[in-house]
Amino acid sequence: MAADPEELGRRLRDGDRSAAPAALNLIEDRSPAGREAAALLLAEVAPAALGGEAPAHLIGITGPPGAGKSTLLSALLPEWRGAGRSVAILAVDPSSRRSGGSLLGDRARIEYDPNDDGVLIRSTAAGTRLGGLAAPTREAADALAAAFDIVVVETVGVGQSETDVADVCDTVAVVVQPASGDVLQFLKAGIMEVPDVLVVTKADLGEAAARSHRDLAQALSAIGSSQTPVVAVSSVPPPSGIGELADELDAHRDRLDLPARRLRSRRASALREFSAEHGERALRALGGRREAEHLLAAGDPGLSVNELVATLEAGA
Amino acid sequence: MAADPEELGRRLRDGDRSAAPAALNLIEDRSPAGREAAALLLAEVAPAALGGEAPAHLIGITGPPGAGKSTLLSALLPEWRGAGRSVAILAVDPSSRRSGGSLLGDRARIEYDPNDDGVLIRSTAAGTRLGGLAAPTREAADALAAAFDIVVVETVGVGQSETDVADVCDTVAVVVQPASGDVLQFLKAGIMEVPDVLVVTKADLGEAAARSHRDLAQALSAIGSSQTPVVAVSSVPPPSGIGELADELDAHRDRLDLPARRLRSRRASALREFSAEHGERALRALGGRREAEHLLAAGDPGLSVNELVATLEAGA
Repeated sequence: MAADPEELGRRLRDGDRSAAPAALNLIEDRSPAGREAAALLLAEVAPAALGGEAPAHLIGITGPPGAGKSTLLSALLPEWRGAGRSVAILAVDPSSRRSGGSLLGDRARIEYDPNDDGVLIRSTAAGTRLGGLAAPTREAADALAAAFDIVVVETVGVGQSETDVADVCDTVAVVVQPASGDVLQFLKAGIMEVPDVLVVTKADLGEAAARSHRDLAQALSAIGSSQTPVVAVSSVPPPSGIGELADELDAHRDRLDLPARRLRSRRASALREFSAEHGERALRALGGRREAEHLLAAGDPGLSVNELVATLEAGA
Repeated sequence: MAADPEELGRRLRDGDRSAAPAALNLIEDRSPAGREAAALLLAEVAPAALGGEAPAHLIGITGPPGAGKSTLLSALLPEWRGAGRSVAILAVDPSSRRSGGSLLGDRARIEYDPNDDGVLIRSTAAGTRLGGLAAPTREAADALAAAFDIVVVETVGVGQSETDVADVCDTVAVVVQPASGDVLQFLKAGIMEVPDVLVVTKADLGEAAARSHRDLAQALSAIGSSQTPVVAVSSVPPPSGIGELADELDAHRDRLDLPARRLRSRRASALREFSAEHGERALRALGGRREAEHLLAAGDPGLSVNELVATLEAGA
């Protein structure tokens, strides 16, 4: 018998993390019946997704492949668990548009205690759609946010991917390894949006890491973002910088007007999903992007992304 | 009086490069009237775009900002001009989706002789659409291909941008600077498609450049693409590697079945443009991506991208 979607949603809302795997399976089912069931589940967890009381912290972790994101998360997990916080990680695999397949089969594993029910790690495909993170990632993050203290969306990329992640998460951290000049160049050229926290991994590499740290801080200062924290971390025992990074992530969240950020994120996601689903032509029928944004801003601030998309569809 | 689009197209087809600036203006006009005029112009140059006799070489140059693409093109221009080949360069600015503006105002300039009518350089915005290069870039490249021997599409980015460029160009070169590990990581992770030619700039940096060259060659070998040429170039006088790079670009083109490549490119562009314009829903109405590809493959191989898009629209 299939799981009852409303029951799953209620269990998540009550903090029952054991309902999470079945909820994620349901959300990943993109058939029409699956979509209907997912909508029922998501309606149950909606208050948490809007940023109700004691909302989860949605953290995006992005960066080039090989930067050490998995190793970093392996070190962050015990830090967070030690503070009594439950953690769900959605590891999003970008798919090659040409091959259509998932190519990160041999990616580094995130290490964790499989018997710890305060941790859930799930790999998910970004899908073939342009624009990176697909709706399932947002929906999965919303569902997990009801039952976990921290939800991490981890994905690979430089440039546009952190913009995609910013539409789903409260705090975006970009991870770079020493001597990785490309992120620096993207920042300086203004192609890449400035993340909330920059992380330089492999601080044990000494001079190279120190230089990266300095170069990034200088680049941020040059583009008027000198307040963006740059944290150097090392996962080589004894790990260093992990506590500082956890503190910076918390500090960013504490500075946020969380309901306002979630509202903005939901509207951005709705606009993105509407465009992907119905095309540029439908956006023009609404009078263009700016008009569509006005239409969204005029609506009830409590509307979910799916309801916002429906608002746009009704107007087109 | 506005330029007659068919007349502009005929002039380009007859090799009259002085018609190119007006043709590009016309193509950049995205109003309905502008679109109609552009269609008339493009119909005139269509045989050249399909890869008729003595077709232009469409070369894509991509890579991270700061990799030295403009400097490289400044060195390639005299090499090509010295061989009597005319060159048009479309420099595509990615726009920030958040700011909506073009952020590369201070990008490095490509140096050339402004009195040489065998060279045309035009900057163009990629637009706000997801998926990188927009239809105007493809159309501009097609128009220029009628009158120039070489058309370069230069754009910035790592990861998906070279896939976009591959839909427009015959040969794709990715430019990296020494110690730029991200391109290497993207290649190894299979996120980035293997380009036709890899260029390591700043070969005057000695050991770092030699190491990059070696690392890239090793990475290519590890993913079974050891035949991909890696060319080290230096633009510091006396420049080095420029002639070798020009030769490798020519050699790639000589190995190509050009009409087959152009056919594949047109179909890929049509599918991309149809999806962006009408959305995923329209794609599903066609039975999905694979069905849409079959529909395109069943059509007349001489159809232009716009005609292929119309074929998909008729089927949806």
